[in-house]
Amino acid sequence: MITSLANEKIKHMVQLREKAKLRAEEGVFLVEGVRLFREVHPEDVLECYVTERGAVLLGKVPDGAETVSENVMQKMSDVKTPQGVLAVVRRRKYRREELLAGNAPLLILAEDLQDPGNLGTLFRTAEAAGADGIILNAGCADVYQPKVVRATMGAVLRMPFIIEENITDCFAVLARKGITVYAAALTQRAVFYTEADYTGGSAFLIGNEGNGLKRQTLLAAQQQGQEVIIPMAGSTESLNASVSAAVLLYEAARQRGFGKAGERIKRERIKRERMKQQ
Amino acid sequence: MITSLANEKIKHMVQLREKAKLRAEEGVFLVEGVRLFREVHPEDVLECYVTERGAVLLGKVPDGAETVSENVMQKMSDVKTPQGVLAVVRRRKYRREELLAGNAPLLILAEDLQDPGNLGTLFRTAEAAGADGIILNAGCADVYQPKVVRATMGAVLRMPFIIEENITDCFAVLARKGITVYAAALTQRAVFYTEADYTGGSAFLIGNEGNGLKRQTLLAAQQQGQEVIIPMAGSTESLNASVSAAVLLYEAARQRGFGKAGERIKRERIKRERMKQQ
Repeated sequence: MITSLANEKIKHMVQLREKAKLRAEEGVFLVEGVRLFREVHPEDVLECYVTERGAVLLGKVPDGAETVSENVMQKMSDVKTPQGVLAVVRRRKYRREELLAGNAPLLILAEDLQDPGNLGTLFRTAEAAGADGIILNAGCADVYQPKVVRATMGAVLRMPFIIEENITDCFAVLARKGITVYAAALTQRAVFYTEADYTGGSAFLIGNEGNGLKRQTLLAAQQQGQEVIIPMAGSTESLNASVSAAVLLYEAARQRGFGKAGERIKRERIKRERMKQQ
Repeated sequence: MITSLANEKIKHMVQLREKAKLRAEEGVFLVEGVRLFREVHPEDVLECYVTERGAVLLGKVPDGAETVSENVMQKMSDVKTPQGVLAVVRRRKYRREELLAGNAPLLILAEDLQDPGNLGTLFRTAEAAGADGIILNAGCADVYQPKVVRATMGAVLRMPFIIEENITDCFAVLARKGITVYAAALTQRAVFYTEADYTGGSAFLIGNEGNGLKRQTLLAAQQQGQEVIIPMAGSTESLNASVSAAVLLYEAARQRGFGKAGERIKRERIKRERMKQQ
């Protein structure tokens, strides 16, 4: 059992927690907590640390894991009350083509999204709404920082995403694939978001929390896309970024008849009915 | 100018920031920042403190305000980088009847919502979607704590809300008023949330972030309300609480033709058009 805070491995784990650049260089990220750890493919786990309590929660010490004292876990952990399971996990690499491969892809384009909670919630919501992928610009917060990973509730393990230097870098290929870019903007051409047709390939632009979309991004979107309005009553000036994304994505899901999500509901209902009958 | 951290008024401000009970006893809450302060009715401001920088941002020292040093402001403030404006504001009292007075009220019923960011975002989203009020149970986080106030982006100043000991305490009066309670639950009776009709009085139940609704609340909702499902694709187990509320509220707003919100858009468009012509 590792009990020393001066252990080199432990020091390295702290570095991985703190430094986005180091995580990127090593092509890894940290996964903490029992629930999230269980969702990781075992072949993607490069290192794993558990406390005795963590091993009890997991039911065993995972293959190749090292046990550590509570003290050491607290040192490595990003949360106040660690569950006692922390792993170094290999990143999956996605190619642009994967995100755009479907028949009518549903995408989020995120520009300069800075708040880790928003970014994580965006991943979680996008998965739930049946999105095919997320394209981020380089100005977004690091998807692999512990707070974002936690807020995704596991969606970061499953939702394909890529990073473009500028979000407009992907506009040409979106146009070639017939995917319409939708930007929220109160222009004369803008329609209520419920009036646009999202049954074809659709990509929703979500801007920075405080400043919205960059001017050049909005102009590019106006040239090849469609402006939409989410109507707001009262004196609210804007919606939270992940809330806007949720409203747009679920309107698209509604128009698409909740394809994948609807199938899942049917399966779960049948399962529950069978369990009742047993 | 107050420059001493030991000043009794300053000590009291710190107490008001830290203690929900004291804020409740005095019937006040704290409003920080230029933008939010500007939205407060002047007659509701009981005390106000500004730094020299804060006064510049505001354009003047407000009537009755006291100037304080940066040091003193930092001591009172809830944020790392205070703008230099902090006020003690009188709470508005709402009666249950006010929330239920409309023709077809649109309400949120929040049970044990604990996360300040979620609760604040819920207020912000509810105002934007045109909701008439929010009913919270006593187990929710304090609406008047600084983090929640900030996350509402001003909606806490405008959105009527009341607190019931148990959320089910309001079910009888909702039934008398013909307001349907909607709970998210995967039961046999449940319909997709887009299949229910929210053009009549509608109240959406939103449960605790980790545990959902209490068992007795769900049972009561099943007896007099309607279960709805927000379909989820992938492996997501749930949506963020404020995201669920947003999806439901905006579906209701859509079915209602965006009444108040639609009117506002029309007014803003006319205003912009006039500004262009000038």
